[in-house]
Amino acid sequence: MDKKLNPSATRKHFALNLRMTREQLGLSQEALADAAGLHRTYVGSVERGERNISIDNIERLALALGVSPASLLEKPKK
Amino acid sequence: MDKKLNPSATRKHFALNLRMTREQLGLSQEALADAAGLHRTYVGSVERGERNISIDNIERLALALGVSPASLLEKPKK
Repeated sequence: MDKKLNPSATRKHFALNLRMTREQLGLSQEALADAAGLHRTYVGSVERGERNISIDNIERLALALGVSPASLLEKPKK
Repeated sequence: MDKKLNPSATRKHFALNLRMTREQLGLSQEALADAAGLHRTYVGSVERGERNISIDNIERLALALGVSPASLLEKPKK
């Protein structure tokens, strides 16, 4: 499962940015997963920082959300 | 080996940013690999866009280079 009890800072930033952007767009995890060609449970585990997500899947999620991949790795504002 | 004949745009951006930043710092692939706890041949394959690198390894390389992980995913200026 590639889980981590203490996700890296970058994983945490990505997880929080992903959830915030998805919710701002009013998308469910399932709708985002469908748009990105991924599984709903996978998106959920990424949003909990449990997955060591790859750059290709970062790109898929960013494209589905209409944001840049880089923006999803930035330190969240709040 | 997880290679791709046509790397994604984000892989290409990361590969180019990684190489440019490393060379600006005057580091060899081996020196960067040592600093990041990775293997020289792995860094080389990432710089050729051949690897679907994970977010944890993106973080390791960014920390070793003294830049933000997000900056390495941005579309290169030139």
